Amino acid sequence: MSFAKRMSQLGTENAFAVAARAAKHQADGHTVYPFHLGDLNFASPEHIKEATIKALHDNKTGYCPAAGILPLRAALAEEINLTRGTKYSPENILIQPGGKPVIGKFLLSFMNENDEVLFPNPGFPIYESQIEFLGGVAVPYSFKQTEQGYSIDLEKLEACITPRTRLIIINDFHNPTGSECTQEEREKLAHIILKHKLIALIDEAYFDIRYEGKSTSILSLPEMDKHCVMLYTFSKKFAMTGWRVGALVAPLKYMESMARLNVNMESCTSHFSQYGALAALTGDTKPTEDMLKTLKKRRDTAVSMLNTITGIHCPSPASAFYLFPEVTGLMQKKGFSKYDTFSEDLLIKTGISLCTRAHFGKILPHEQTGTDKNKFFVRLAYSGIDEENIVKALNILKSYAE
Amino acid sequence: MSFAKRMSQLGTENAFAVAARAAKHQADGHTVYPFHLGDLNFASPEHIKEATIKALHDNKTGYCPAAGILPLRAALAEEINLTRGTKYSPENILIQPGGKPVIGKFLLSFMNENDEVLFPNPGFPIYESQIEFLGGVAVPYSFKQTEQGYSIDLEKLEACITPRTRLIIINDFHNPTGSECTQEEREKLAHIILKHKLIALIDEAYFDIRYEGKSTSILSLPEMDKHCVMLYTFSKKFAMTGWRVGALVAPLKYMESMARLNVNMESCTSHFSQYGALAALTGDTKPTEDMLKTLKKRRDTAVSMLNTITGIHCPSPASAFYLFPEVTGLMQKKGFSKYDTFSEDLLIKTGISLCTRAHFGKILPHEQTGTDKNKFFVRLAYSGIDEENIVKALNILKSYAE
Repeated sequence: MSFAKRMSQLGTENAFAVAARAAKHQADGHTVYPFHLGDLNFASPEHIKEATIKALHDNKTGYCPAAGILPLRAALAEEINLTRGTKYSPENILIQPGGKPVIGKFLLSFMNENDEVLFPNPGFPIYESQIEFLGGVAVPYSFKQTEQGYSIDLEKLEACITPRTRLIIINDFHNPTGSECTQEEREKLAHIILKHKLIALIDEAYFDIRYEGKSTSILSLPEMDKHCVMLYTFSKKFAMTGWRVGALVAPLKYMESMARLNVNMESCTSHFSQYGALAALTGDTKPTEDMLKTLKKRRDTAVSMLNTITGIHCPSPASAFYLFPEVTGLMQKKGFSKYDTFSEDLLIKTGISLCTRAHFGKILPHEQTGTDKNKFFVRLAYSGIDEENIVKALNILKSYAE
Repeated sequence: MSFAKRMSQLGTENAFAVAARAAKHQADGHTVYPFHLGDLNFASPEHIKEATIKALHDNKTGYCPAAGILPLRAALAEEINLTRGTKYSPENILIQPGGKPVIGKFLLSFMNENDEVLFPNPGFPIYESQIEFLGGVAVPYSFKQTEQGYSIDLEKLEACITPRTRLIIINDFHNPTGSECTQEEREKLAHIILKHKLIALIDEAYFDIRYEGKSTSILSLPEMDKHCVMLYTFSKKFAMTGWRVGALVAPLKYMESMARLNVNMESCTSHFSQYGALAALTGDTKPTEDMLKTLKKRRDTAVSMLNTITGIHCPSPASAFYLFPEVTGLMQKKGFSKYDTFSEDLLIKTGISLCTRAHFGKILPHEQTGTDKNKFFVRLAYSGIDEENIVKALNILKSYAE
């Protein structure tokens, strides 16, 4: 009894190892400042829980359609059309047990063996893991530093395209950098998708986690709804990570077959939980607004404190809940040239637990051997740590750095 | 933009087409007797709902471990050990969003491309669909009629094994026939698994839906825990079909990698729903016992009425909630030699909606061309129709037949 070959290609979210290390440090009696968490330390809003409880009392406990309950599909189509300027109908929506299942279903649907798939690096590690696990060739595209933060290196991206490139994964409102595309960059990406006849997965998990300005989607550009599959999740916007409700949005002609993937893989998404998701879309928006205000304060505090520390340069992203400061100077000063020894020293000396660039995909050759000297980055998530502890932690970090 | 090749291999549960046809007939103003449903028309027990509601109030709404919450894994290990005589620990258990995801995860974990996989035919159609979709070769094994009902044709099964046969799927307490293995047959199956070094998926979804005697598992036989992955579901026993909570049970050495499949595919199973599943295992057993009593009455009524109808022979299975009568005589009398025209006539003339043998896998050559003349079977599920309507429907069927 032994595993199939593909199992050797299966990656994971390496952040789990960081979480385990932090838990051990805490169990040993130390204070830990959890900047590694991608989860939110906010409870799901009451009206969402109440709608779910009502659905339980109403015995919405049997199977529902594989594609999801119609009112939720209708409300989500309306929400996406309002925010993205699209023209989806409920028939374009397949409710899923989370946003993550959309990644696998997209690849299973469109990726043949040995097809090349462009994916963001640094990026959410499950893209690369699933591409390779399901028999594709994962081709990373990278980001460059800009005045405001980071942006996709579109020139290098297009240079990676070969006749075997068939798919691209785009994570606008980006984990881990917090960056997002400008309208001009979205237009360039759309042009690349059309020119090279690519099929795109648009992961907009953080579209609604936004502190200033307004999120815009590549899906609003001409023809994009015909070439893109969208990943939607209720997890981040509504603090519903543990509910596992999300959606796959795709062109009509694919829906019948993609719904059959639901029938094959999980029958349907939790029936009564879908009434909670419906309340999230149609109910009181104040809890979400309050959460965004709190997250904004955390961001502002963390960014301004980080930028007072010698050897750290931290952009301030307008969306998502991650900071991706460059820490090259700090690491040099402390005598570290490797992420693992640096982050271990940081945990022990300051209690700060964080992920590094190395947790978000293989480090690409041109990142380390460009014209610049080596550069180092870490990711601080401020979704799971209160402002008070952010202040405490970053004061300790300042002392550590100086 | 076009689908990957594997999408042309994707099957479905054809029973959905039956459900759609029945819904249309009903919408046209006719009475429908729903014998096609695999769902239960019982609400989930109150104490299970209450435990879930408490978990919502306790804000169990964030991520939980990918493998599931520890108390549920512990309670389920204990339950399985008690009922199957196994020695699993919580570490052998991975909570899943339903029983169905276990089928795909088993195949992804152990099946290489072109590996041959034995599966039951007639049987749950998702086995064959997933084997072919994921690049394997689906090799059907069949059942034979016995005095009591049906049993796996073990001789033919073993004759199908080639050097490329690597996996076998066994659905003891069988959908659609309602049959189960005798102890001797389980021993023969175990012998075949060991002799041919097969890896087995043991789908025991209906293990606890039982009206007399006691369910026994092939997992209780020597060495079987090392060669088998088990599919467990809360759906049937606890009337929790719409909750989507189940489990994968496997040898310890595979657990780390298989848990990584959870991380890749859905992060975790709904956090608060797992507290409902925990209450199901540890709480009041009366609702389950009452449901079984009701189901038993339905079975007894249906079986005895069916057997008074000329041209129908219906065994009485001790487990699951399906009847699989032979209807060859009835079809001949009514002049039908094809399932689709027969079932359409039946729906229009009697309102009875049911699945036929043809909904549970391709009909095998030796079933149709043996020494006997052609034989025909249908499946009546009594999980979604009350006794009163069973009586009404089968009286109408009797008139139709005579």
